[in-house]
Amino acid sequence: MGTGSVGMITVLAISIFLLYNCANAAVEDDLSSPWSYECKAGNCQKIKTTPKITTPLSLGVCQLFCGEAGALWPRPTGHLSLGNFVLQLNPNEIHLHDSSSARTESSSLIAKNIEILKNDLRTMGGDRLKSGGRGLIVHLGPRISSGNVKLTLETDESYILQISELGDGRLNASIDAKSYFGARHGLETLSQLIVYNGLYNKIQIVRDAYIVDGPVYPYRGVLLDTSRNFVDKPTILRTIRAMGMNKMNTFHWHITDSHSFPYESSTYPEFSNYGAYTPQNVYSNDDIKEILEYALLQGVRVMPEFDAPAHVGEGWQWVGDNTTVCFKKEPWLKYCVEPPCGQLNPASDRVYEILGGIYKDMITDFQPDIFHMGGDEVNINCWNTSDNLKEWMTSKGWGHKENDFYKVWDHFQSRALEKYVEANAGKQVPIIMWTSGLTNEENIKILNPSKYIIQIWTTGEDETIARLIRNNFKVIFSNYDAWYLDCGFGAWVGEGNNWCSPYKGWQKVYDNSPLAILTSQGFSPDKKNQILGGEATLWSEQTDSTTIDSRLWPRTAAVAERLWSEPKSSWIHAEHRMLMQRERMVAKGINADSLQPQWCAQNQGHCYL
Amino acid sequence: MGTGSVGMITVLAISIFLLYNCANAAVEDDLSSPWSYECKAGNCQKIKTTPKITTPLSLGVCQLFCGEAGALWPRPTGHLSLGNFVLQLNPNEIHLHDSSSARTESSSLIAKNIEILKNDLRTMGGDRLKSGGRGLIVHLGPRISSGNVKLTLETDESYILQISELGDGRLNASIDAKSYFGARHGLETLSQLIVYNGLYNKIQIVRDAYIVDGPVYPYRGVLLDTSRNFVDKPTILRTIRAMGMNKMNTFHWHITDSHSFPYESSTYPEFSNYGAYTPQNVYSNDDIKEILEYALLQGVRVMPEFDAPAHVGEGWQWVGDNTTVCFKKEPWLKYCVEPPCGQLNPASDRVYEILGGIYKDMITDFQPDIFHMGGDEVNINCWNTSDNLKEWMTSKGWGHKENDFYKVWDHFQSRALEKYVEANAGKQVPIIMWTSGLTNEENIKILNPSKYIIQIWTTGEDETIARLIRNNFKVIFSNYDAWYLDCGFGAWVGEGNNWCSPYKGWQKVYDNSPLAILTSQGFSPDKKNQILGGEATLWSEQTDSTTIDSRLWPRTAAVAERLWSEPKSSWIHAEHRMLMQRERMVAKGINADSLQPQWCAQNQGHCYL
Repeated sequence: MGTGSVGMITVLAISIFLLYNCANAAVEDDLSSPWSYECKAGNCQKIKTTPKITTPLSLGVCQLFCGEAGALWPRPTGHLSLGNFVLQLNPNEIHLHDSSSARTESSSLIAKNIEILKNDLRTMGGDRLKSGGRGLIVHLGPRISSGNVKLTLETDESYILQISELGDGRLNASIDAKSYFGARHGLETLSQLIVYNGLYNKIQIVRDAYIVDGPVYPYRGVLLDTSRNFVDKPTILRTIRAMGMNKMNTFHWHITDSHSFPYESSTYPEFSNYGAYTPQNVYSNDDIKEILEYALLQGVRVMPEFDAPAHVGEGWQWVGDNTTVCFKKEPWLKYCVEPPCGQLNPASDRVYEILGGIYKDMITDFQPDIFHMGGDEVNINCWNTSDNLKEWMTSKGWGHKENDFYKVWDHFQSRALEKYVEANAGKQVPIIMWTSGLTNEENIKILNPSKYIIQIWTTGEDETIARLIRNNFKVIFSNYDAWYLDCGFGAWVGEGNNWCSPYKGWQKVYDNSPLAILTSQGFSPDKKNQILGGEATLWSEQTDSTTIDSRLWPRTAAVAERLWSEPKSSWIHAEHRMLMQRERMVAKGINADSLQPQWCAQNQGHCYL
Repeated sequence: MGTGSVGMITVLAISIFLLYNCANAAVEDDLSSPWSYECKAGNCQKIKTTPKITTPLSLGVCQLFCGEAGALWPRPTGHLSLGNFVLQLNPNEIHLHDSSSARTESSSLIAKNIEILKNDLRTMGGDRLKSGGRGLIVHLGPRISSGNVKLTLETDESYILQISELGDGRLNASIDAKSYFGARHGLETLSQLIVYNGLYNKIQIVRDAYIVDGPVYPYRGVLLDTSRNFVDKPTILRTIRAMGMNKMNTFHWHITDSHSFPYESSTYPEFSNYGAYTPQNVYSNDDIKEILEYALLQGVRVMPEFDAPAHVGEGWQWVGDNTTVCFKKEPWLKYCVEPPCGQLNPASDRVYEILGGIYKDMITDFQPDIFHMGGDEVNINCWNTSDNLKEWMTSKGWGHKENDFYKVWDHFQSRALEKYVEANAGKQVPIIMWTSGLTNEENIKILNPSKYIIQIWTTGEDETIARLIRNNFKVIFSNYDAWYLDCGFGAWVGEGNNWCSPYKGWQKVYDNSPLAILTSQGFSPDKKNQILGGEATLWSEQTDSTTIDSRLWPRTAAVAERLWSEPKSSWIHAEHRMLMQRERMVAKGINADSLQPQWCAQNQGHCYL
C-alpha cells in the first residue's frame, strides 16, 4: 500500500446474524437492560428487547459490522470483509505463533504487544466478566521477521489481517506484513475486532475477517510541547499509547523553548539545572530511554525538536558571553510573540559549540531518523538589540536592514546544520523546519529542498503552501486553522480568547485534507508524493499533564484517520466510529474528551443539524 | 459577616523574614535549584540564590505573605493579618481540642476534616518529605458545637481563625464560628497557610495569623448535569472536594433530563431501568447517601433538580398513557432546543401521581432545604402536537394559542408544587426555577416571589434581571455569557462551535459581578439582599467523568471568589493567587486545567498584555 492509492472498502456482510458458542445463552445471561440494537441502513438502532429477539445485540457488537467500516479506526484503505459471526474469546488463551524459526526483535516486540492486548482484555468488564471462550493463535507471516525495527520514511507499514476458525475450534489471526510496524498495526486492527459485550458480560471476537490495509501518508505525528509547561512521563507514555491505538507513528517532541529547558543534556547538565521549572521537572536519559522503548512497542518514532535560533532563553543563563539576545526583554510584544523573548546570537562561536554538544546528546538519546530544527518566529527587532551581533554584521560588510538579518539567519542555519551532521558522524538525516520568513518568496532559495522538509503551520489557504510545492519541498501539514489543538481557550496574557480561537471541533479537524488543500491550490493529485503527512499540534501554554489527554484526544484520532486513510468522505460518515474509538481510548485510561451526549451513540442518526 | 459588607483587608507584614526551627538549615538542606524568590512590590520575584541569601524562599513560601491576600483563596472579607514567620509542621501531630465538654456532630465532622488535612499533608512532597516539626492544636470555639449541621440559606458561615505559638513550642490554631460550616471554612483557610517547601522538603506553616472572614452571598453553587452524560461517583466526590476547597456550598444536581434517567427512584425503579444509559450508570440510594455524607464534610448541600415539564423523555417509556409529549419527535429543531425532544403532558393525572412519587423519593434521599424544579425551555410547538392535551384544553374552555399554553404551564406548575409540598409532609421549602417564558413581562405574575427563587441564565445584560428584581424575586446568577462553562467547544450537532461560544476564560468568569450587574441596571446597592448568590454551570453534552474536572476547575474557583468576596477589583489582582489555588487543587487530585505557562507563576508580572 504505502503512499499508493486508497483501495475500495467493502463490507461483505451487512445483515447480522450472531452465533454464540454458548447454546443456552438466553437462559444463563442476565439481560438487565430492556434495550438492544439492530443494524438498519448502516446505523445501529436501539430497540426494545422482546422474547422474539433470541440473541439481542449490544451496541458494541452491532457496531462491529454495521456501516461502511464497522468499528475500525482508522478506516482500512484496502479490501475489507467481515463475516457476521462473533465468538466468545478467552483472553488468557491468546498465543503467538511465529512462522520463522529464529526469535527476532520483531517477533519479540509483537509478543510484548500481545501481552498488552491480553491485559487490556482481562480488565474489560471488571468483576462482572464471565470466563471461558475460544483460544486465539496469532500467526505472523514470514516477511515480518526479516525487517528491522527502525522506522524510517520508507518503512512499509501495510499489513494483511485474516481471522478464521481452526479445525480444533480455536481461532487463527494471520498477520502478514513487510515490517514489524505493519504487523503491530495489524494487531491493533485485530484488537478493534474484539469487544466486551455488556449484555452477556463476555469478550467476543469477529469470527471471520479479511483486511488489507496500509497508510496513505508515511508521517503521522503528534507534537507535544514540554517547555511551556512540563509534562510528566506517565502522560507522555499515555499519549504514545493513544497514538499507537490510532496508528500514528511520530511523536514530535518540542522539548525545549524560551520558557524552560527540561531536557537533561549529558554534555551540558547546566541547561536543565538552570532551565527546568523544578529539579523534578527534568527528562533524564533514562526517562527518554524508557519512552523510546515504549514508543517502539506502539509503532512510534520519537523525534526531538531543538528549536533555534528563536524560542530559546531559560537554561542558557549559565553560559553568558552574549550567547543569547533579548532574553526576557520588555515590552515583549516588540521582540517576540509571547513572553519571555529570547534568541541565540548567530555571531557567537560559543553558540555553535554548544549546539554541537546538544545535538550530539540528542542523537545519542533519540537516535532520530529525522530531526526537527524548528526555525520559526525569528524576530528581527530582537537581534537588532544586540550591539555584539551588529558589530559582527558590520565586520562581514553587511548592513543592519531586514535582508541583512536574513543573511544572519542563513549563516546560523548553515552552521547549525554543519554541527548536526558533524555530531551525527557525518551522516545527513532529513531535517524538518517550520514555515517562517525563510519560506517567504524572497528567501525560499536559502533552504535546499533535498535537505529540508517543511512543516506548514500557516492556514490551509496560505500561498506559502503552493510556493513550497512549486519549489519541490516535501511538506508536513499542521495548518493552524485546523490542526492546532490548543486554540479556543481563554487568553493567557490579557483578556478574551487565545490568538488562534475558536476551538477546532473534531469535524473541522477531520475534514482538513492535505490532498484537498493541494488540489484546491491548483496542483494535480500526483503532487501528493510531496506530502509526507501531517501532525496534530499541541502547544502547552495552557495545558499540562492534567489536561493533555483531553486536548489531544479524540480530535487527534480524526487527524489519524485523515492521514492513514485520506478518505474522500467527510466527518459525518465517520461519526459513529469516532464515538466508538473515543470509548476505546477511555477504556484504556486515556482521558479523551466527550464529543456528544451518550444518547447520540445510542440513538444513531438522531443527532443531526 | 453573613451577607454584610465586605471588610477591609490588610496584610500587616509585607516584608518577609523567615525563621526556621532547624538552625543549620543551610547545611543540611540540598538546594539543588539555583533559583529562589523574594517578595518585591507585591510580586514574588525569581532571583539567583547566592551565599548572601541565608534562607532562600521557595515560591510557595514567598506567596504565603506576598501581595494583598497572600496565597488565600477565596480572599477573606474581614481583617487579615499574617506574621512573617514560618515553622516546620509535623503533619502527624495535629490534634483537635474541642472546648465543649460533649462530643457533638459538629466536632466529630471537624475531627474528620482534620484527618483529611493530615492525610493530604503526609502525601505532600512524596518520598522526599523530611519528617519532624512542630505539633498543632486546633482549638474550636464553644459556639460551633451548639449549631446544628444542616445548611440553610440563613446559616452563618463566618469564622475567625487565629494562629499563634504555645508556650511549649507547639502551635495553636483557634477557630471560632457560629456553625459547623463556618468552622470547616476556617479549617480550609488554615490549610492554605500550610505549604510544602520544595527547597527544604519540609512542610511549613505560618506562625502568626489573625483572619476574620465570611461570605458575601449565602448561595455559592456548582451545577452538574448527569443526564446528557453520566458522571461517575468518584468524579462527583472529586467535584465536591474541590468545592469545599473553594468554600462553595451548593452542589446543584441536574440529575435527569430528556437524555437519560440515572436516578434510582425507590417508588418507580422502572425509570432508571428504562432510562439509564447502562444498568451500571445509575445513582443508587446508597450512592446518594455516600455523596451527601461526603458533601457535609466539605460544607456542601446537595440540591437535586427535577426539571419539568420540559427536559423529560428517556425513562418514561414504561409509563405510556400520554404522559409524555413529542419525545424523540423530529425534526427536533421544531419542538425543542436539542435532541431528543420531550415534555410532560400537563393534562395527565398520572403525571402528577408519578411526580409526587419522585419528589417523595428525592426528599427522602436528599433531604433538601431548597429544591429545584427546573422549568426551562418549554416549547409550545411540542405541546401543540398532542391531541390529548388540546382536547383537555378545550374541555377547560381554553383555546390553543400561545397564551393558552401558558395557562397550561401555570396549571402544571401549581399542581407540581402541590405535589411537592404534599410529599414534604406539608412543608414549603424555597423552590428554584430557571428564567423562562414564565419570567417574561406578560407571565411574571404567574410565579409568587415568596415561593420561588429564580435562577438567571440569560446574559448579564438581559432585561429579565431588572424585571425579577422589580418583582421582588430573590435571584441566583448563572448568566450564560460568563458562567456557562460548557461553552466554546465544537458543535455536537452539525459543524462549527457550540451555541454559547466562545469559551469563557477565567478572567471573564472572575469579573462577572452580580452586584455590578444590578447597579449597571440602575438598582441601588441595597438591592443586593435579593441576590442569593450564583452558580458555575456545567451542562454535560460534551463532557463526562474524563473531563469534568478541567471544565469546572480552576474557573469555578473564580466564581467562588466572586461569590464569597464580591471583590471590587478585577481578575488581574487575583492572578497569582489563582495560579496557586489551581496548583493546590491539582496536588489534591483535581485535574484542574492549566491557565498559563508555569513560567508566568515563576516570573510574576512578566506575563501581561
